[in-house]
Amino acid sequence: MTRDEKIMRWCIELALKGAGYVSPNPLVGCVIVKNGKIISEGYHQKFGGYHAERNAINSALNRNINLKGSSLYVNLEPCAHYGKTPPCADFIIANKISKVIIGTKDPYQLVSGNGIRKLKRAGINVKTGILENECRSLNKFFFKYVTTGLPYVILKTAMTIDGKIADKKYRSKWISSVESRRIVHGLRTSYDAVLVGKNTVKHDNPLLTARLVKGRNPFRIVIDSKLSLSLRKNIFSDGFANRTIVLISKNADKGKIKVLEKRNVKIIFCKSQGKIIDIRDALKSIAKRGITSIMVEGGAKTYSEFMEHNLTDEYMIFISPKVMGNGIDAFNQRLDMRKYKNINYFKTGQDILINIKK
Amino acid sequence: MTRDEKIMRWCIELALKGAGYVSPNPLVGCVIVKNGKIISEGYHQKFGGYHAERNAINSALNRNINLKGSSLYVNLEPCAHYGKTPPCADFIIANKISKVIIGTKDPYQLVSGNGIRKLKRAGINVKTGILENECRSLNKFFFKYVTTGLPYVILKTAMTIDGKIADKKYRSKWISSVESRRIVHGLRTSYDAVLVGKNTVKHDNPLLTARLVKGRNPFRIVIDSKLSLSLRKNIFSDGFANRTIVLISKNADKGKIKVLEKRNVKIIFCKSQGKIIDIRDALKSIAKRGITSIMVEGGAKTYSEFMEHNLTDEYMIFISPKVMGNGIDAFNQRLDMRKYKNINYFKTGQDILINIKK
Repeated sequence: MTRDEKIMRWCIELALKGAGYVSPNPLVGCVIVKNGKIISEGYHQKFGGYHAERNAINSALNRNINLKGSSLYVNLEPCAHYGKTPPCADFIIANKISKVIIGTKDPYQLVSGNGIRKLKRAGINVKTGILENECRSLNKFFFKYVTTGLPYVILKTAMTIDGKIADKKYRSKWISSVESRRIVHGLRTSYDAVLVGKNTVKHDNPLLTARLVKGRNPFRIVIDSKLSLSLRKNIFSDGFANRTIVLISKNADKGKIKVLEKRNVKIIFCKSQGKIIDIRDALKSIAKRGITSIMVEGGAKTYSEFMEHNLTDEYMIFISPKVMGNGIDAFNQRLDMRKYKNINYFKTGQDILINIKK
Repeated sequence: MTRDEKIMRWCIELALKGAGYVSPNPLVGCVIVKNGKIISEGYHQKFGGYHAERNAINSALNRNINLKGSSLYVNLEPCAHYGKTPPCADFIIANKISKVIIGTKDPYQLVSGNGIRKLKRAGINVKTGILENECRSLNKFFFKYVTTGLPYVILKTAMTIDGKIADKKYRSKWISSVESRRIVHGLRTSYDAVLVGKNTVKHDNPLLTARLVKGRNPFRIVIDSKLSLSLRKNIFSDGFANRTIVLISKNADKGKIKVLEKRNVKIIFCKSQGKIIDIRDALKSIAKRGITSIMVEGGAKTYSEFMEHNLTDEYMIFISPKVMGNGIDAFNQRLDMRKYKNINYFKTGQDILINIKK
């Protein structure tokens, strides 16, 4: 690993501190080096707050450090446009930084290449593509979101060895080990939202919060075309109902809509074919609300919808060393994942975790 | 690891050279040490041949080495009875060996403790229980066989992530990777027999040989109560029909029996309830023929029979990163394996191997 790569890795570490709080913005970390020494660092902490570059530069300025001739490392191309804050490229130029080392270009159309061009025109030495894969992976949510207008989707399921997610009576609780559940709760703190079908809420009445780890709770999205679920279900009635989003069609029960609106539950009207919500359209509406990443947590019908419409970017499958015999199958769609780039296996307690990325 | 354990490990390595060739005898390796140096070694090479101790002692005697005062290491208690060869304990005593270090006692009733007693009465210093677990594991087939009169049973299956072993048309070939299949073929060289149900032969027409690795082929056992399979199937008509065993009931087709007998296919008449062979009774008959280990390779009905009657000692489940959607379920019996002692996971090519031992 070169020195540039080592410092870029540190940028990634810093960036990750913002995970769960910056969406729909990207995760960005920044390190400034002068005379071979790290003199300042910063990261994008919160949506609407300063960008990483500005935080790192300000931190140095606050300590009366002159940045002239220094090198700035950042995992994503600095912005060149006025958004919630003024452009970082201008601030870098104004502070006479002489070299900028970048992980990946910003795919966002208002930035893409413009930040780099602006820096170069100002005579700054710009180097790009340092740990490019890692930097892209760090911002997989953001890249998917800005290039497609859809959120990044991970499909998570916990099943028995024989591929069952519940018994015939839809009892599914605690199929997976506490270690596996802790991983899922950890993911809930970094994904913008979790999504489940109506039947999962009906049978399991889940909280869908991140209880087993520290961190913020995700939005909870439920597909319920006709709004037939009882409004006493946890996601509608616990203290976080304002973090619940319901995807409904125009056939939904009007009275229930009113009740949910009073509770600050967010309602999204979606296109539908008969009773079936158009899931791609729904994801677009969700993305427009600034949700860049979704963890789909079930059940079988919902998994099938996502697989059928090829809307899944990643799979996270926990397998518990049990055989259910008869029960509810997780999947009813055929899919050959051997062609996918990344197939990895991990032991999580007594379970095995299969992680597959496109 | 102590010096005794290191030498015992070498005994185990030597013993394994006999794997696939000594059944129904145990795997045994022997090392003789004098003045701190290994001076001779031997192992049980073949059923009916000399035991490991005799091979090691003879090897020393052939080189005119006097064994007086030496230490003999062996993974299994030396025999004290006349079997196919004279008792090893007597031979050890006659050669004035002064110390015997043993891995595990022999559970076989004609030996159990008698070998050790005989050695002790002759004034030999006997130490037992060195790497006992490893030595027991080495001879898991033999221990099961002599203590229960049943063969050791491993249930092997290759499935998709969603627990399917074939599609709805029973097409199942190449669900697993070549690496996984090589492991299975390797197991076929060390298990005495592989066993399948009638439907597997009907749909897959497998060879059940060890093609992908060096080593001997196992016996091929098929359950076919009425003998309804075509006699053109590979296991009845390839060059190894004398290594095929058919489990039938008294309802079996008499004409076909005669044809198979002419081809030297082995026929075992089993108890049955209606058309269903009593699988425990069948295993006893198989064991009486000196078969101490069986790998059950399918299909779903056969797996269920073994699971229902609790006849499985170990599971080897290969999971391929594919989703079948609709297909044939591997299992229809409920089984919680979390209580089992050994649950391990391995990556085999693109597949994951789950290995579970009771």
